[in-house]
Amino acid sequence: MSLTVVGSVAFDGVETPFGKRDKMLGGSATHFSISASFFDDVNIVGVVGGDFTRAEFDVFERHNIDTSDLEVVADGKTFFWRGRYDFDLNIAHTLETQLNVFADFQPKLSAASLKSRLVFLGNIQPDLQREVREQLKDAELVALDTMNMWIEQTRESLVETIKGVDIVIINDAEVRQLASEPNLIKAARKILSWGPSALVVKRGEYGAALFTDGTYFAIPAYPLESVFDPTGAGDTFAGGFMGYLASHDGINEAAMRRAMIFGSVMASFNVEEFGTERVQRLTHEEINERFRTFKKMTHFEEIPFQRAVTVGQ
Amino acid sequence: MSLTVVGSVAFDGVETPFGKRDKMLGGSATHFSISASFFDDVNIVGVVGGDFTRAEFDVFERHNIDTSDLEVVADGKTFFWRGRYDFDLNIAHTLETQLNVFADFQPKLSAASLKSRLVFLGNIQPDLQREVREQLKDAELVALDTMNMWIEQTRESLVETIKGVDIVIINDAEVRQLASEPNLIKAARKILSWGPSALVVKRGEYGAALFTDGTYFAIPAYPLESVFDPTGAGDTFAGGFMGYLASHDGINEAAMRRAMIFGSVMASFNVEEFGTERVQRLTHEEINERFRTFKKMTHFEEIPFQRAVTVGQ
Repeated sequence: MSLTVVGSVAFDGVETPFGKRDKMLGGSATHFSISASFFDDVNIVGVVGGDFTRAEFDVFERHNIDTSDLEVVADGKTFFWRGRYDFDLNIAHTLETQLNVFADFQPKLSAASLKSRLVFLGNIQPDLQREVREQLKDAELVALDTMNMWIEQTRESLVETIKGVDIVIINDAEVRQLASEPNLIKAARKILSWGPSALVVKRGEYGAALFTDGTYFAIPAYPLESVFDPTGAGDTFAGGFMGYLASHDGINEAAMRRAMIFGSVMASFNVEEFGTERVQRLTHEEINERFRTFKKMTHFEEIPFQRAVTVGQ
Repeated sequence: MSLTVVGSVAFDGVETPFGKRDKMLGGSATHFSISASFFDDVNIVGVVGGDFTRAEFDVFERHNIDTSDLEVVADGKTFFWRGRYDFDLNIAHTLETQLNVFADFQPKLSAASLKSRLVFLGNIQPDLQREVREQLKDAELVALDTMNMWIEQTRESLVETIKGVDIVIINDAEVRQLASEPNLIKAARKILSWGPSALVVKRGEYGAALFTDGTYFAIPAYPLESVFDPTGAGDTFAGGFMGYLASHDGINEAAMRRAMIFGSVMASFNVEEFGTERVQRLTHEEINERFRTFKKMTHFEEIPFQRAVTVGQ
């Protein structure tokens, strides 16, 4: 097993200006694992209730996602989130949150999961993330996501957890909030100074950026004429990013940069339809084609300019 | 003369959290021309008052900017703008606007200016922009900038003016407002459908994008740890963009992409100090070095991925 994700598995109800789903498969670990499954074998660690049916398990199975560590609490209900997006699809309005079995989630990693080369700690309570991290003695690379609630309510624990991971994958508002610094570049440097070797900044329609010690890489987002449902885009990005790295021997800057593109590619597909619907039926050819488009839309020749007459000096 | 700019020449008073200038050289044509002067000869068309001194003319002269078409109204005063930026440097708060001689500005182009290969119509009343455009029988490329006020107050005239130019260079909020379309990609396609062959979208800290018929190019902004004064960044971008194109024989997609980088490079220097102060003392080596940094921070290898086991199909 080379890639494990720990996080939420949920049912989502989503309303957008373009349509509605009352109950569909969602959650951070779900979006992450389906996206990553196009690149490598994935093990999912989470908890669901007795209402999680064969149909949902089949989705994971079709993508070779190992659900051995997906605990089923037969007499409980699966985490449920319901939200609405208006025309500004950047803002999710939460209408309902039922934590259900997720309220008492205690990640339990099997021996196989504990031996994963790469681990992604999805957005859960930072103490839990740290407990999992501490069990991963041999992991080559551990990444985490978080959210504004943990930054506000459990900042100290979160910073402690961040000190122990290799990569932080969060959005730009979270970077600024976490570092208490309005300038993104300064904020990124501050977070890296705590210990991680890389910071991945998700910027939605503006693309993504990768900070490592002394290097900076940035890409625009894929230009979409319509965004249908942004739910799970960040986790789908992380799944493409980590999945590609998991498939790669030796993780270096060049591989991380390509991983940023694959993350962006997967996220761009995710938002084209509700939930995981579009990503579920992706093909490798579609993924590679969009990767090539990224290359085309960012390519320019490096030809330094020298004016014959030197002015202003 | 291969590049002419028509626009405002002004004195600016600027306050930011980092300092203050009571009166410094500013205006769209000023920022544009100084930036463009690093790439080609520039002719500036504008109007100033009797308070415009030798010191200001010297700035243009040092950059080989031809001021023959910079009209002086001896008994009038130069356009004055005073504004403040708070910690969110994206928002300019106007404190005072004295149009002065600019209120009656009627661009007068000499025979030399009328023969320019490239012309930039800075942000002035769209009727005036169109009048100038109609006199330019032989120009190879005419670009324009505008602002929210003209979109709101003189939309019909502005659209008519846009129909007659080759390139529109505006910011992303203006693209959406002008096209009455919240999605940037759709909005861009709509504006291109009116006639221009290219649309350049300035996105501030998020970079810039270039739309042509069927192609899309996007770049991040240069990562700045501190932005000192954003006044004139857009015009400085346009100056680098048009200046580079003016220096180039034959304008094609590859040249436009490099022009986007040079525009971004010049804008990134502009915001490092007050007004035109940083750009005035730039060297070609500094410009080229930052161009190379853009290449480094956007480069990735195109290696398509193929997973051994095909899943999800």
